[in-house]
Amino acid sequence: MSKALDELIEAFSSLPGIGKKSAARLAFHLLKRPVEESEEIAERIINARRNLKACSVCGNLAEIDLCDICADKSRTKSVICVVEESSDVSAIESMGEFKGSYHVLGGVLSPLDGIGPENLNIDSLKSRLKEGVTELILATNPSTEGEATATYLISILKSRGVKMTRIARGLPAGGSLEFADKTTLARALENRTPLG
Amino acid sequence: MSKALDELIEAFSSLPGIGKKSAARLAFHLLKRPVEESEEIAERIINARRNLKACSVCGNLAEIDLCDICADKSRTKSVICVVEESSDVSAIESMGEFKGSYHVLGGVLSPLDGIGPENLNIDSLKSRLKEGVTELILATNPSTEGEATATYLISILKSRGVKMTRIARGLPAGGSLEFADKTTLARALENRTPLG
Repeated sequence: MSKALDELIEAFSSLPGIGKKSAARLAFHLLKRPVEESEEIAERIINARRNLKACSVCGNLAEIDLCDICADKSRTKSVICVVEESSDVSAIESMGEFKGSYHVLGGVLSPLDGIGPENLNIDSLKSRLKEGVTELILATNPSTEGEATATYLISILKSRGVKMTRIARGLPAGGSLEFADKTTLARALENRTPLG
Repeated sequence: MSKALDELIEAFSSLPGIGKKSAARLAFHLLKRPVEESEEIAERIINARRNLKACSVCGNLAEIDLCDICADKSRTKSVICVVEESSDVSAIESMGEFKGSYHVLGGVLSPLDGIGPENLNIDSLKSRLKEGVTELILATNPSTEGEATATYLISILKSRGVKMTRIARGLPAGGSLEFADKTTLARALENRTPLG
């Protein structure tokens, strides 16, 4: 196979969730399409990577500072939803129900990967707490690292007098008891809600 | 969400097999990595698309004319394996057992998509037959269009006195009778091979 083709397949397979075979399929797809299409994709990759910066307030990715959400005066600044990544902001925004603001940590505590509190966007969260924040919703993922990060945030911030909540963990909509793992089931029982 | 990010996600989801969610994951992955990584991927896309051309003999993608395979004097030029796409050449080459040459049709007959014989790389195949070819292996896919294309090639080339064969169709290695579809089972019985 030619070098240019090998290199393209290698580039695609460096992306998460794309194996050697899918990478080859993507490469051959582009090679069959007009040159302009490849140029457009390449340009968008460079454009997005160069122009998107972390918002100076919340850490969300944005082309201008402040980001759309921080700049939006109709949104409640007193409720902050703390998430791991910008992609989590997109996920919550796509639901269209949350009207507060966000804080993007830029990752989770992960001692094995050498990621400690100093590597996360925590200092700026502390300083935001001075500005009339009433509730902090900890919406890190329900993974080991996400839980540990939430626990850490509670431990360092509880003295600030801000209400802190954690997103609910339980059975997903459409899920079934039969196929749920033990931890999920335990959480679903533990966090049961009163009826009637 | 910002325009640059939207555009990047849209670009990724225009690729085959990548939905909206995977596209977003790819985009956010790139945005977390160093700028150089995005630039490298963008460059490889453009480089491959601009520099790879169809080989003037076999139609396979190559940076120089002739392609590696046509230029390789150790390979048998008298046996030609006819395939749909360059990706099929890669698949057969990765097996490492075929020592003949190839002919890439650049697609299959598909009247519904307006693809007739004149849109495929068939004329150059005809002219290659004049140069001492002894066998034509029809290796189009065992799909409706692939079979129709093989049948068409047989009908227009049978008068040339070249031996024509079709790749075997039957149960795949590791497959099971129980889960095979009817057509595959029918072919496996029809093309059964004598033992002992």
